[in-house]
Amino acid sequence: MKWKCTFCGFEENLLENYHWKCPKCGRPLFIEYTVKSEFNSSRNIWHRYSGFVPFVPEKTRGEGLTPLVIEKNSKHVLLFKLEYLNPGGSFKDRGSALAVYYGYKMGFKKAVVDTSGNTGISVTLYSKLYGLEPIVIMPKTAPPGKKKAVLKIGGKVIESEDRSSASRIVSEYVKDREVYYVAHLWNPLYIIGHATIAYEVFEDYGVPDYVLAPVGSGGLFLALAYGFEKLMEQGLITRMPKLIAVQGYSCQPLHEALYGERAEGEDSSLADGIMVYNPPRLSEIVDKIKSSHGELVLVGNSEILTALEELWQAGFLVEPTSATVYAAYRKIKDKIPSGAAVLLLLTGSGLKTL
Amino acid sequence: MKWKCTFCGFEENLLENYHWKCPKCGRPLFIEYTVKSEFNSSRNIWHRYSGFVPFVPEKTRGEGLTPLVIEKNSKHVLLFKLEYLNPGGSFKDRGSALAVYYGYKMGFKKAVVDTSGNTGISVTLYSKLYGLEPIVIMPKTAPPGKKKAVLKIGGKVIESEDRSSASRIVSEYVKDREVYYVAHLWNPLYIIGHATIAYEVFEDYGVPDYVLAPVGSGGLFLALAYGFEKLMEQGLITRMPKLIAVQGYSCQPLHEALYGERAEGEDSSLADGIMVYNPPRLSEIVDKIKSSHGELVLVGNSEILTALEELWQAGFLVEPTSATVYAAYRKIKDKIPSGAAVLLLLTGSGLKTL
Repeated sequence: MKWKCTFCGFEENLLENYHWKCPKCGRPLFIEYTVKSEFNSSRNIWHRYSGFVPFVPEKTRGEGLTPLVIEKNSKHVLLFKLEYLNPGGSFKDRGSALAVYYGYKMGFKKAVVDTSGNTGISVTLYSKLYGLEPIVIMPKTAPPGKKKAVLKIGGKVIESEDRSSASRIVSEYVKDREVYYVAHLWNPLYIIGHATIAYEVFEDYGVPDYVLAPVGSGGLFLALAYGFEKLMEQGLITRMPKLIAVQGYSCQPLHEALYGERAEGEDSSLADGIMVYNPPRLSEIVDKIKSSHGELVLVGNSEILTALEELWQAGFLVEPTSATVYAAYRKIKDKIPSGAAVLLLLTGSGLKTL
Repeated sequence: MKWKCTFCGFEENLLENYHWKCPKCGRPLFIEYTVKSEFNSSRNIWHRYSGFVPFVPEKTRGEGLTPLVIEKNSKHVLLFKLEYLNPGGSFKDRGSALAVYYGYKMGFKKAVVDTSGNTGISVTLYSKLYGLEPIVIMPKTAPPGKKKAVLKIGGKVIESEDRSSASRIVSEYVKDREVYYVAHLWNPLYIIGHATIAYEVFEDYGVPDYVLAPVGSGGLFLALAYGFEKLMEQGLITRMPKLIAVQGYSCQPLHEALYGERAEGEDSSLADGIMVYNPPRLSEIVDKIKSSHGELVLVGNSEILTALEELWQAGFLVEPTSATVYAAYRKIKDKIPSGAAVLLLLTGSGLKTL
């Protein structure tokens, strides 16, 4: 169980020190550990998938084992994964459950996170569970419902003017050795935690042909790649799904990385949850799109709104950011072969937005 | 599979006609069907518990199989059942999934329901799923978040001045033979649907010693009694839990029924979800409290607020009505024997209330 930098070769025991990025080269780290293909029927995902995670958190709030709703339309089998039914209202709970527990075991007393919303709720929830003091740095423009939720759970909210002022605030906090900088955009425990989604989909259905996931930091997207890769390595599945990344036109670092230029298109400000301009793992995301023969789909506000309306009327009460994947599906469905199974990640609860 | 009135003896095949109350004596009906103790591992509760329900709905939105979070304090084992993680944000989805499907199979085209909130969301969600037109009659004082949710899912909201005007509106609608009056306070399909909670608790833990449930119409409370009784009848368990009903001081028909008088106490208007002044199944609720050696606990706003705050800080993001059961637990915990397992039903999502 060790930190590992695949770029410069840095290695260190996971329980020696916490590094939110490589202390030698500043790039994102991985965690190396022995994976065993053990499943059991526990309703606690950390026990159920204990063979697939480096350690098992002591506590749970019921994260994971979310429903997979299977609907056939005239052409495809749609697999809606209801990640918004996690205890904090989003898939982030899977990563936070693992990452905050690690911070607690390492002896930190406070947890700091900079986020537009859902991660703030999630980190606050698990920090309170383990007795860490949660401090959430949020942009002034974050949705008011998400701020209120952080406060009600018992987190401290610090409003930042913009991304760079948020970074300044974080760097002040992390000078204190009692502070755990959760760094969800970098922390590989988020990828390992979110990857439990892939194990659940495998148990409930098998391997989908296509996976559509919204990409902000890319934590969810990389987690799905990671999860299906682990299942491959363990010989449980024999092929990878095509991984389709979804971003909004207003924030399309992936398009720039893939094609060297921005694409023209409508504003996509409704997808506030995926407005990450410099995802630290951008090159990894590009690699996974290419190696899985996937692609990038960009969407705009009018497409998001239509998708959101359809999802609510179909009984999926999600937030606008989650609707991006359904908007993307509508956009590329004619290109997807008949009979294909398409996994749609519905990431965050819309009840917060009422 | 038939309607049955235990009061006057009325019987009729379930698929012959729909009756929201006994057409002979006007009392609440039951449904008689053969129960078989078959469990399987399906993640669709209607297949998983098909032996315990009269019919299996064709569709699902992932209702049920909610987490059971087990926490030990110094004296008891607390079993938190996270019913607020159902797709519509409350346990009502279990009953609605069954009841609305029945309406659809019986050929109705519209579904009408009168409710303060959660049932409205739930009935709207399942009505849209089966192509029925949802019409929700809500008091003017219902929480705005719940109204908004009904509208976003595609329901029609009709605001009523008070309970009696709501009844008048309902009676106008039901003159139309295409209209299914869901009548969740009466419809036994809600009890049979909600009873799946008991089967899940049995699978995840076994039989709790105490069950604390909020009582509005009593549908949830009676469902828990029903569910554990079915498990007893099938020889799967050998004892019943004590059933503790929780109401607010502002609306305490159970206290009046049990003791012939009102109890003095603080306003409990925060528990808007259980303000049912004339629950049609009042005498059944009284019977179940007595036969299970349970009791009634009344709570007020300050107790609800304290409980709500504690629940959020413990990571349970519920609405105030759900906090009544934890308030009740705090109130009676000294009387509950050491080592007892106490099931606390957390019924509705607090994300709607942000």
